Order: sequence, then structure tokens, then C-alpha cells
Amino acid sequence: MRRPTLRDVADGAGVHPATASRALNPQTRHLVSPETADRVNRVARALGYRPNPVARSLKTSRSSSIGLIIPDLTNPLFPPIVRGVEDVLGPVGYNAWIANTDNDPAREEAAVESMRSRNVEGFVFATARLEHPLLEDLAAANTPVVLVNRRLAKPTVPSVTADDAAGISMALHHLVEEGHKRIVHLAGPQDLSTGVNRLRAFRQALHEHGLDENQTRIEVCRSWTEAAGAETLNKLLAEGADFTAILAGNDMLALGCYDVLAEHGLRCPEDVSVVGFNDAAFMDKLTPALTTVHSPQYELGAEAARMLLEELSEPRTHPRSVVLPVTFKVRGSTAPPRSP
Amino acid sequence: MRRPTLRDVADGAGVHPATASRALNPQTRHLVSPETADRVNRVARALGYRPNPVARSLKTSRSSSIGLIIPDLTNPLFPPIVRGVEDVLGPVGYNAWIANTDNDPAREEAAVESMRSRNVEGFVFATARLEHPLLEDLAAANTPVVLVNRRLAKPTVPSVTADDAAGISMALHHLVEEGHKRIVHLAGPQDLSTGVNRLRAFRQALHEHGLDENQTRIEVCRSWTEAAGAETLNKLLAEGADFTAILAGNDMLALGCYDVLAEHGLRCPEDVSVVGFNDAAFMDKLTPALTTVHSPQYELGAEAARMLLEELSEPRTHPRSVVLPVTFKVRGSTAPPRSP
Repeated sequence: MRRPTLRDVADGAGVHPATASRALNPQTRHLVSPETADRVNRVARALGYRPNPVARSLKTSRSSSIGLIIPDLTNPLFPPIVRGVEDVLGPVGYNAWIANTDNDPAREEAAVESMRSRNVEGFVFATARLEHPLLEDLAAANTPVVLVNRRLAKPTVPSVTADDAAGISMALHHLVEEGHKRIVHLAGPQDLSTGVNRLRAFRQALHEHGLDENQTRIEVCRSWTEAAGAETLNKLLAEGADFTAILAGNDMLALGCYDVLAEHGLRCPEDVSVVGFNDAAFMDKLTPALTTVHSPQYELGAEAARMLLEELSEPRTHPRSVVLPVTFKVRGSTAPPRSP
Repeated sequence: MRRPTLRDVADGAGVHPATASRALNPQTRHLVSPETADRVNRVARALGYRPNPVARSLKTSRSSSIGLIIPDLTNPLFPPIVRGVEDVLGPVGYNAWIANTDNDPAREEAAVESMRSRNVEGFVFATARLEHPLLEDLAAANTPVVLVNRRLAKPTVPSVTADDAAGISMALHHLVEEGHKRIVHLAGPQDLSTGVNRLRAFRQALHEHGLDENQTRIEVCRSWTEAAGAETLNKLLAEGADFTAILAGNDMLALGCYDVLAEHGLRCPEDVSVVGFNDAAFMDKLTPALTTVHSPQYELGAEAARMLLEELSEPRTHPRSVVLPVTFKVRGSTAPPRSP
């Protein structure tokens, strides 16, 4: 007997396969209507459907491919995103070309050119800057593109991002609950949506918690890297900045802080609490284990791939911006301040 | 003025571009003769050559691709290998399709089938088992294939691996120097060259150090994962095994030991020393930082790609097995035993 496929479930429920896939996944179910989610799940149970990533690629003869543009595969944020993309594409017979750009626009342009010459049907970009001429050109030429993790200033291209604002709000709330008032935000580059949105959320959250802005401080780091985090914290310490907690805009900046605090004989969390953002692999294994915002990295990639497949089959006139929820992981790097 | 390319250097030195690339890289220079390395480096300096990964993909119109088969991109061992492959392929206009198999032969077969239907010119496999019918079939059909990290029982397919034997010997030497005699080796799966070669090297090194085999113990883990390491150590502790040090066959097994030791109230390194193998990303950030054998992961990938490019341009009758040197990183997870 033939195993039921995702398409069988979709056909049975009268929805697009991407919708069916979304409805079957608890993490993305909220993106479809409760009625649709119910119907899809009833059909799936009735048919005895189990996801099988291999079956379909064996059967399809279509040679479909997309391009996946990322900054750097060795940054631990990106492997789960790439796997999410591939695990959705595989079952429907698509493969992804991957290019690492190291955030260099020239490398990115060369990679896109090379992939276009290989007739990719569309792209997932994890490298979006707020102003990004190449992406705007692709959108203008009606090339199917979905952005993941970062987005453009104007919502002209569909995107899937983590809820940056909610994450920063949770992080600040946690620090305030612990008793911190003198808090530093290490912000990311301000030409990226992640950097801008998290900084904006920090200002907003300060306001909501009635914190005195004069006791807090914002420093913009030149990149989302450990080295940039270390450099910025070194500068703050050299200036004699007065703080009990650091809300780092991502985990890599937080990692840079760990090293610098140790070099200055400061203990984390006894002397300084540190919070990160993303909960990349191994952040729970550091000492102290990093308190951080958990972004659903695998789901970001999977959802971006689903949206691109949808774009390929039924192009939309209004690009959607999908925001996936984040959670907060309290671990060992935060504690009440010794002197609030 | 046109920038000099790798091919210009190769032409000037009268060698294959892959040879030139190897000669220009300090980590792989030992793979070419000293005379050739000298000549290539003289020509490169004379021409003012700087590696440029973008230039060539812009110029080439050839649409060349290879397949890259790995177990799981979210295992931190593999992203640097993938980047090494891509950084060598990019400049000569090749792209790689990547497939994650989760070590499942059915997924692997489906991925290879899909890539062949896309006319890839060859493959790099990071998934080799000692007995591997699919690889033997590909070799029999003269499909260009290079193995990376693991190899077959018979050297019928070219491979690039880390020096497993030297790494284990260094690790055991370090433990013996610290005063350990009661040592456990957590071995990896015995259907993989990495598992078998490291276990064989452990036995050999015991002999060389005149250690009493009755004081040591070997346990084979069911996979190279944190969960398998934890499971095996739990079993040993439940049996009341008597040891002061664990030589884990890879970093993931060592990570599993960290968790179990903590659960049993045993401190690392005070009560039990732990050594890993690979020095994957973040192993220097654990607490305690992991003492481990450093394998040149990026270079393994880069060298595999160079060998595959050579195979594509001038097939060899005698497959080569290239072994790259490892180093040993002494960190915080090893110390002298309290009672030798």
C-alpha cells in the first residue's frame, strides 16, 4: 500500500501543501486559522500520515533548485536554519545551493549571479541589510525571494523573523525582576533589522518598566561577533562605566563579554549579569550557562522554505512578514546585583 | 590591470592549479615536494597573487557542480568541513549540493540519486562506513568520489582524514604524564574508520606506554553522540567501574560525560579527567574547557575539494589516502589523579 503523502493530506483538506505542513507543525500552527489547522490534522490522522522526507525526492523527476544565501555557516546560528530549509525542500524534490558571503556584498552578488546561471527558481536570504539594492532589484524583477532572520526596512520582500521586540522585552523584564537598574545594551549593527529592532525594543522596554534612562547605556557594536562584543565592553570598562548587567543583542556579543569580564577579574553573574539573544548551540554548556532569548532557528528556516514554495506555486501581490515567537531561558549568567 | 589568478600562478610554476593551491597553504604544503612548494610560492610573490574567492566564479561560464554528503550540519564538526569544501570550489566556478543523511542509508541513497539526476560531476562523502556498498558501486562505476573524515576498510576510494592514531597517542601520553593509569576509552561505532582506528590506536598506545591492560577498560558507544557518551558512562558508573580518566573517542562523547559526572557529584578534572577528539567549535568555552585532539576540520574539507577537482581533470588509477596532522590542546578538563 502506498504511504500517504503531505500532498494527500493537503488534497484531502482542500489546502495548499505548504499550509498543510504548517498546520501539522505545533510551532507554526498559529499561522493558519484554527479551523484549517483542525481540518488538516483530522485528515492527517484519518489517512495515517507520517512525515517522510525521503519518499518524495525518490519519486519526483523535477529538477527544482533554490539558492540559500547565508553569512557564514560556521556561525552556530545558521546550521539549524539551513537544516530547516533543507528538511522542508527535500520531501517536495527541491534542493538548495548554499553560499557563504561573510556579509561581503561583492561575494553575495557573485553567488547570486552564479546561482541564476544555474536557473534557481528562487532564493532564501539570511543576509538582508535594511537597505539592500540587490534584494530590491530581485524583487523588482519578480524573482521569488524570502528573507530569513533579518528583513528590509520596507516590507517589499516576504520575511520570517524571530520576535525581536518580545525577546528584548522578556530579557529586560528578567533583569529588572532580579533588581538591576544600571543596565548596558550592546546593540548590533544599525544597518541590520536585528540590530535596529532590538535597540528600539530596548528603549521601549526601559520606558515600560519606568527605568531611569540616565542609569542605562547603549553601545552599538560594529558587528554581531565575539570580537566586537569584547572590543565594546573593553571600551566601557576603560571609561569606568557603571553597570550591573549587560543585555547583549546576540549570543556572540555576550560570549565576547565573558572573556573580557574574566580578564578584568569580574565574575559573572556575581559582579555582572549577562543576557544573550538566539540561544545558539552550546550556549547552555558555557560556564556560566548563558541566560538568553531562544529564537526558533530551525523553524525560521523551515517556514522560509514553506513560504518560498508557496511563492513559487502561487505568487502573491502582498508580501507577508511572518514573526515567530521566542521564549526566554533563565540560566546561570544572571543573578541579583550586589548593590542595586 | 587584471588581478593574477590561481591559474596564473599554476601556469607560471608549471603545475596543476590544485597543486598550486596546496603549495600556497602552510597547512597542506607538506603534501607537495619542497621544490614545487618553493617554486609556486616564488611565482605567487612575483605575480603579486592574492587568493580571491569571488573573481573566478564571475568569469567562468561553466556550470559545474558536485554533491557533498554529510551526516548532520548541526553537528559542529561539519560546518568547517563544508566551508573548506566551498572555499576551494568557489574560486574555480564549482558549487556544491549539500545533503544531510542523519547516517540513514536510505536518505543517503535518495540524495545521491537526486544529485545524479542533476548531473553532478563528483561527490565528497563525510558519511563513509567501513563497508559501504553505495560507495563501492560509485567507485566501480568510475564516479569521481573523495571521502573526508572517515574512510572505507579497503583503500579503493581516495580519502582525506585526520591522523586518528597520532591523536589518540598524544591523548594517552598526556594522561600518563599526568599520572593516570586507570583509564577508560569510550570508543566510537566499530563500523566507522574513526571508531576502529582510534580504538586500535588506544590499544597500541597502552602497549607503548607499558600500561597494565587490566587497569584500563574499553567501552564501545552506539553512536558518536552526547547521548551515547552519557549512556555508556552511566553504565560504567552503575557497575562501579574504577577509573581516574576518560579518553573519549570524540568531543560529543566527552560532552555526554560532563553531564553524567555532574549528575553523580563527580568533579572534572578533580575526580575524573576527560579528553575529547576533534576540538569542534566551543569546546574551548566549556567549563572546564575540554582538553582534546585538534583535527584540522576546515583543511580536511579544503583538501577533499582539491583532490576531487584533480580527479575531475586527471583521473588516477591509484586512489590516494591523505592523512592530515593533528595537534593536542591541553585545557582544563585534565589534571593529575588524586590517587594514581
